Amino acid sequence: MWQDLHPLGRHPGSHGYRRFAWTPADAECRAWFTEQAQARGLVQETDRNGNQWAWLGDPAQGDAVVTGSHLDSVPDGGAFDGPLGVVSAFAALDELRARGTEFTKPLGIVNFGDEEGARFGLACVGSRLSSGQLTRDQAHRLTDGDGITLPRAMESAGYDPDAIGADPDRFARIGAFVELHVEQGRALDLSGDAVGVASAIWPHGRWRFDFRGEANHAGTTRLTDRRDPMLPYAETVLAARREAALAHAVATFGKVAVEPNGVNAIPSLVRGWLDSRAPHQDDLDTVVAAVEKAARAAADAQGIDLAVVRESFTPVVEFDHALRDRIGVILGRDTGLTVPVLGTGAGHDAGILSGTVPTAMLFVRNPTGVSHSPAESATEDDCVAGVLALADVLEGLIHA
Amino acid sequence: MWQDLHPLGRHPGSHGYRRFAWTPADAECRAWFTEQAQARGLVQETDRNGNQWAWLGDPAQGDAVVTGSHLDSVPDGGAFDGPLGVVSAFAALDELRARGTEFTKPLGIVNFGDEEGARFGLACVGSRLSSGQLTRDQAHRLTDGDGITLPRAMESAGYDPDAIGADPDRFARIGAFVELHVEQGRALDLSGDAVGVASAIWPHGRWRFDFRGEANHAGTTRLTDRRDPMLPYAETVLAARREAALAHAVATFGKVAVEPNGVNAIPSLVRGWLDSRAPHQDDLDTVVAAVEKAARAAADAQGIDLAVVRESFTPVVEFDHALRDRIGVILGRDTGLTVPVLGTGAGHDAGILSGTVPTAMLFVRNPTGVSHSPAESATEDDCVAGVLALADVLEGLIHA
Repeated sequence: MWQDLHPLGRHPGSHGYRRFAWTPADAECRAWFTEQAQARGLVQETDRNGNQWAWLGDPAQGDAVVTGSHLDSVPDGGAFDGPLGVVSAFAALDELRARGTEFTKPLGIVNFGDEEGARFGLACVGSRLSSGQLTRDQAHRLTDGDGITLPRAMESAGYDPDAIGADPDRFARIGAFVELHVEQGRALDLSGDAVGVASAIWPHGRWRFDFRGEANHAGTTRLTDRRDPMLPYAETVLAARREAALAHAVATFGKVAVEPNGVNAIPSLVRGWLDSRAPHQDDLDTVVAAVEKAARAAADAQGIDLAVVRESFTPVVEFDHALRDRIGVILGRDTGLTVPVLGTGAGHDAGILSGTVPTAMLFVRNPTGVSHSPAESATEDDCVAGVLALADVLEGLIHA
Repeated sequence: MWQDLHPLGRHPGSHGYRRFAWTPADAECRAWFTEQAQARGLVQETDRNGNQWAWLGDPAQGDAVVTGSHLDSVPDGGAFDGPLGVVSAFAALDELRARGTEFTKPLGIVNFGDEEGARFGLACVGSRLSSGQLTRDQAHRLTDGDGITLPRAMESAGYDPDAIGADPDRFARIGAFVELHVEQGRALDLSGDAVGVASAIWPHGRWRFDFRGEANHAGTTRLTDRRDPMLPYAETVLAARREAALAHAVATFGKVAVEPNGVNAIPSLVRGWLDSRAPHQDDLDTVVAAVEKAARAAADAQGIDLAVVRESFTPVVEFDHALRDRIGVILGRDTGLTVPVLGTGAGHDAGILSGTVPTAMLFVRNPTGVSHSPAESATEDDCVAGVLALADVLEGLIHA
C-alpha cells in the first residue's frame, strides 16, 4: 500500500513531493485513496469540498469514529507529513479486522483536501470549508501563484466550485476524530517513545516588521550620514532568537524583502516577517513584545521608521481533554506506561475539527525532527507502533 | 539650458529620473546635447560606441582639452549626477567666450554613453569600450532585465552594434580630461567649500556571502535543533558596520536573497552581498577579512556552511598628480585659498579614462550628501561656482 503511494507527485530533481491541490499529482493520490477503499469493500465518497471519505458501516447511524489526515504536500515536502496518517488508517482497519473486532459504530477514513495550502496560501481549506470556518465567497477569492483562482482549479480537476460550503450534518454524525501524524519536532525522540498524544496546538501568529530608511549610494555615503534599515533588521533577527530562548518559545525570521535590493545601494526598506509560537499565550505575548521593543530601540538608534503589523493570529487549540485522557488509558492499558502528551507548533485539520467534533491526535516519532523536507522520516518499527496504537484507540472508541 | 533638460526621462510618480541606455529618454537627452552643440556652432559627432562629442577647433590637431560627463541615470536617480558635468561644460564654454579667451587648443565636450549601467548591469560601458577595457564580444553578451541584449538595444535605437570597440586614436588626441560632478558625500559641506578636486577613486569591491543551513518548519523545530542561516547573516551585517567604522571605510549589505523565503520556513540559504570601499587598499583588506572572520565564527556557532566569493574588485584609481596640482594652482591663483582634495567611493568615466589620458575631477558641494535619489541637490550658487572653476581650469589648461 505504502509502495504504491511513494512515487506519486515526487519531483525527480529534489526527491521532494509536490502534491498540490487540484493538480494531476493530487488526482493520482485521490485515485490511490479510492483504490484502497474499494480493496477493503468500503463505501467511498467525495464531499462537496473535495474531502474523500471511506466508510465501514453507515455514517447516518451517527457517533462515527473517524481517522485520517491528508495526502497533499508542501513544495518539496517529505513522504510522511499527511500520508502517514492515511496509510496508518487503512492499516489500522486491516489490523482490527485481523483481530476480529466487532464494528458496533460506523468507522470512517478521511483524506482532507488542500491541508498544506501550498497552492493557494491558506492551510486546511477542505476542513475549513466543511466546518464553516471558511465561506464559499472567501474560498472563491483564493488565487495561486500563476493567477489561477480556486474555482478554476477545481473545475479543471472536474469538481464543482459552486457546491462548496459548510457541511454541518456530516460533522454532526462524527463522535470522535483521531488524526495520526509524524511528529514535526524531536520531543518523542528525546523522551524515547515511539508514539505520543497531542495536548494542544500552540497559539501562533505572524508579524510584519517594516523598517524604512533612506536609499543612498553605498560607496559615497559616510556611515554617520546613513539611515540604513538593514542594521535594525539584523538586530531584530538576533533579538527574536534571544527572546524565544528565554520564553521557551520559537521565533523565526524566514522571509525578507528589500528595496531597492541593489548591491551598491543602502536600502530604503527592509521588510521582515516574524513567525512566533509558544505553548502559552502569555509567553507568546512576551516574546513578541520584547522583539518589537528591541526592534524599536535599534530603529531609533539608526533614525529608521518602524511599523509592526500583525498579519495573522491563531489562539491556542486545546484538544478534547476527555478524549485525550481516554486515549491515554487505552494506550497504557497493556503496558502500564504513561503515554507522553505533547504540544505542537504546527496547524492541522484536527485543529480545525476540534471546534466542532471531539478530536485527538497521535504523533509518531521523527528521529531527526526534520519536517516539510525530503529528509523527514520515521522508522518502520515506529510506523508499525503507530498503526497498532491507532488500532487500539479506534477499537477502544468503537467499544466505548 | 538646464530647464530644457529637466523634464527629460523624469518619472511622474517617483519624481526621479529613469534615463537608461538606448531608451527613448536616452535619445531625448542625446538630442538635447546635439541642440546645445549646434547652438554654439560646435561640430558634433557620435563615436562608434555611442559617446557624443562636440568640438570647438579640430581635434586632429591633438593635445585637446576635453570636459563632460554623462546624461544617463540610475533608476529614480537625481537631476545632478552626470548632467551637472555636461551642462557645466557648455556653460563654461559660454563663460570663456564671454571672457574673450583665445582657444589655442581644440576644446571638446563629451557625453559618455551608459555610465550608470542601470540597464545592462555594467557601469561606464561607453568609456570602457573606447578605452579598450571592454571588448566588443564582452559587450555583446550584456543583457538587460527583460532579456534584451545590448546589440538589440543599440539597433532599436538606430546604432550599429558591430561597429563598437576600442578607439585609441581618438583618445590619443586628448591632452587632458576634466570631469565635473556633484559630490556624492558631504566632505565639501563639512569643509565649507563649494568646489573640490578629486585625489583618487577608492578601491572597492563586492563579495557574496552564502550562508547555507537546513530548511525546516518554523513552528515545530526546537531552537536547539535549528541550523538557521538568517542568524549568522544578521551577525555579519552588524560586523560589517562595526569593522567599517573602525577602519574609516564603508561597508554595506544592501542586497539579500533568501530560500525558500517563506514566513513559516527556516531558510535553507541566506545570500547577502557586501559592498565595501576604503581610501586605502590595506584598510579595505582589513575590513573584508574582519567581516569574513566574524561571519565564519557566527556560521560555525549555528552549524551553517559559509562560502565567500569576491564577485568584483577595482583597485584604487589615482588621478594624474601633475594635473591635479596644476588645477590646485589655477583655482588658488585668485583667492590664495587651498582647494580641498578629496577621495571618492564612486566609480566614474574619469576613472576609466585615467588609465589612458591625464585625467582630473572637480566636485561641486552636495549639502545633503544624498546621491542616486531625487533628493540629490546642489545650490544655484555652488553650481555657478562649479562652472567658473571649470572655466578657470579649462582656460589654464588651454594656455598651459
